[in-house]
Amino acid sequence: MVEIVVSYHSGSGHTRRLVEVFSDALGELGASVHLANVENFKDADWAAMKRADAHVFAAPTYMGSVSAPYKAFMDASSDIWGSADGWQGKIAAGMTVATYPSGDKLNSLMQMAVFAAQHGMIWVGLDDIGAPVSPEQVGINEDGFCLGMGACSVRDKAQMIRASDVTTARRFALRIYEATARWTQGA
Amino acid sequence: MVEIVVSYHSGSGHTRRLVEVFSDALGELGASVHLANVENFKDADWAAMKRADAHVFAAPTYMGSVSAPYKAFMDASSDIWGSADGWQGKIAAGMTVATYPSGDKLNSLMQMAVFAAQHGMIWVGLDDIGAPVSPEQVGINEDGFCLGMGACSVRDKAQMIRASDVTTARRFALRIYEATARWTQGA
Amino acid sequence: MVEIVVSYHSGSGHTRRLVEVFSDALGELGASVHLANVENFKDADWAAMKRADAHVFAAPTYMGSVSAPYKAFMDASSDIWGSADGWQGKIAAGMTVATYPSGDKLNSLMQMAVFAAQHGMIWVGLDDIGAPVSPEQVGINEDGFCLGMGACSVRDKAQMIRASDVTTARRFALRIYEATARWTQGA
Amino acid sequence: MVEIVVSYHSGSGHTRRLVEVFSDALGELGASVHLANVENFKDADWAAMKRADAHVFAAPTYMGSVSAPYKAFMDASSDIWGSADGWQGKIAAGMTVATYPSGDKLNSLMQMAVFAAQHGMIWVGLDDIGAPVSPEQVGINEDGFCLGMGACSVRDKAQMIRASDVTTARRFALRIYEATARWTQGA
Repeated sequence: MVEIVVSYHSGSGHTRRLVEVFSDALGELGASVHLANVENFKDADWAAMKRADAHVFAAPTYMGSVSAPYKAFMDASSDIWGSADGWQGKIAAGMTVATYPSGDKLNSLMQMAVFAAQHGMIWVGLDDIGAPVSPEQVGINEDGFCLGMGACSVRDKAQMIRASDVTTARRFALRIYEATARWTQGA
Repeated sequence: MVEIVVSYHSGSGHTRRLVEVFSDALGELGASVHLANVENFKDADWAAMKRADAHVFAAPTYMGSVSAPYKAFMDASSDIWGSADGWQGKIAAGMTVATYPSGDKLNSLMQMAVFAAQHGMIWVGLDDIGAPVSPEQVGINEDGFCLGMGACSVRDKAQMIRASDVTTARRFALRIYEATARWTQGA
Repeated sequence: MVEIVVSYHSGSGHTRRLVEVFSDALGELGASVHLANVENFKDADWAAMKRADAHVFAAPTYMGSVSAPYKAFMDASSDIWGSADGWQGKIAAGMTVATYPSGDKLNSLMQMAVFAAQHGMIWVGLDDIGAPVSPEQVGINEDGFCLGMGACSVRDKAQMIRASDVTTARRFALRIYEATARWTQGA
Repeated sequence: MVEIVVSYHSGSGHTRRLVEVFSDALGELGASVHLANVENFKDADWAAMKRADAHVFAAPTYMGSVSAPYKAFMDASSDIWGSADGWQGKIAAGMTVATYPSGDKLNSLMQMAVFAAQHGMIWVGLDDIGAPVSPEQVGINEDGFCLGMGACSVRDKAQMIRASDVTTARRFALRIYEATARWTQGA
């Protein structure tokens, strides 16, 4: 069984919703999923991150990059950087939410990919081609992200993110699950 | 009178259309505009770039960054880099086109901004806030770009880019015109 | 007289040292300089940022991007984003410090440039060519940064940064001073 | 046996030297290595890329991003993008060379990582911590790159790159070999 930690910050609930959709899908696939809210990080969260096969980073994009509470978690990880408790050789992936379709979210995904590389992790992107290039895939990765997932917040509090983001997040969960299983199997 | 060069590559006409809209607006504002197609670059184009107050870089995003023909022009500029014919202290801005709203276009804009910085230029971004943050600005910078302009290609050959991109490009022209006039005036 | 605010975070004193060298040089040039420590931000700092002609962003690179305390300041600026108290049309520049010559510092400078673009600011890079390309300029911008300044921390607490970083910072101060004066003059 | 393709462009021989060191080390480890010069790309090169378990991208950084000849190869790969001949699920890594220690090489590595993500590939970074953080590792990854390898050109034509780059390239070869073997094994 693969173990995956999703560490996240959510300012007003949109990223939390994305994380729930994503982790529910991971659970349905058979993964052991651990959600870690960076605003309330506990020793058990660090322990889970040490043990896990894969980490998924999730945060809103604020002013063009990952939100400060999430960055505080990233900075705190320098304590285990390069140590026996470090994350070398684990799978990593990223997700971010903003108001606009582009919204400088690629910058946050790059920031997460560089962070993962500093930890010696293996980066897995989205790999999902939506319409119009794949005309039958309307509502899948509609803004054309590749390095990770970029969702849009919506004002409807029952939805929080677009329906297309829900679909894409579930497919991204399958992608991360399969990559993690393969990587773990190959060890 | 401010002089502005728009250097561009257009593979199938979308970037060419964006450039025309943008340069027409610049001309209406009173700028002297010089269009330079990088696939047919002449000595007169280099001379115009040396003389101009501002350069606008325009290219499609192919496979996540600026198209190869445009990159060939960027590489060719190393001949005048740091020389008396160089572009130090000129205004610079960037525009790119891709199929998807995000489409890794931010990566191309970053690439252009780093390029401009290598030449010692002054970078001017888009600065236009569309809906939903500015609810009355529906159809303006709808994908939320900041570092420059990101447009979407459309399949209708009469349009080539979205109506919102036409509106945004005209407003971006005003932004660049005013910044160039101010910078020139201050010399 | 041009007014310049240098907002900074310094974890162990290296960035603070860089900021002092830089702001001393600005002062010698005749600028009015306001230093704002983001860990102790006051209303007077926000007021100075509203009033200033230019902002210089300075922070260490931690785990591949701008330190969390500095990011918290960036996020806090969303309160004045796009408002009458905003920074539209001001000059912006960036500086960062890390242990290694590259050290993913370019990622922090990109993050700062995207942030400045979100605020509608005008980005001014380093524009200083050191050895070996300019053989006589040994000890100037020795790592080849362009988008802003990247310094290296040293363990000697009396120095904090390399001698070459001190020299480069003073030249960068002149660059920012002149750009700000020109931009202000042109208004 | 793992198969690895190193596709490269080399303008004046520095990248070619880096690629040779790297691929020799791969060969010593037991990998089947295919070198593909993008300036002379043949059908056999495309066939090798389809067949390989991993791709390593290697190019100089010119004017802040991947050289135009290498970008032309990247653009040409759009013909097989998302097709049965595509590179989905393969391992990818990147190397670049420039004059300066930083030299905007991180921008080229980001460009390569975004490119790999567009192709649905799995990105493996450098993961090698040199001095001063690891004091005994003097001369290893001395400029502190993470997302991939960044080397410095030297003027001595017998060397072409620094001795530390040779050492780092050999260690990077081991990293890529092991990751590819593990990923292949897990399929």
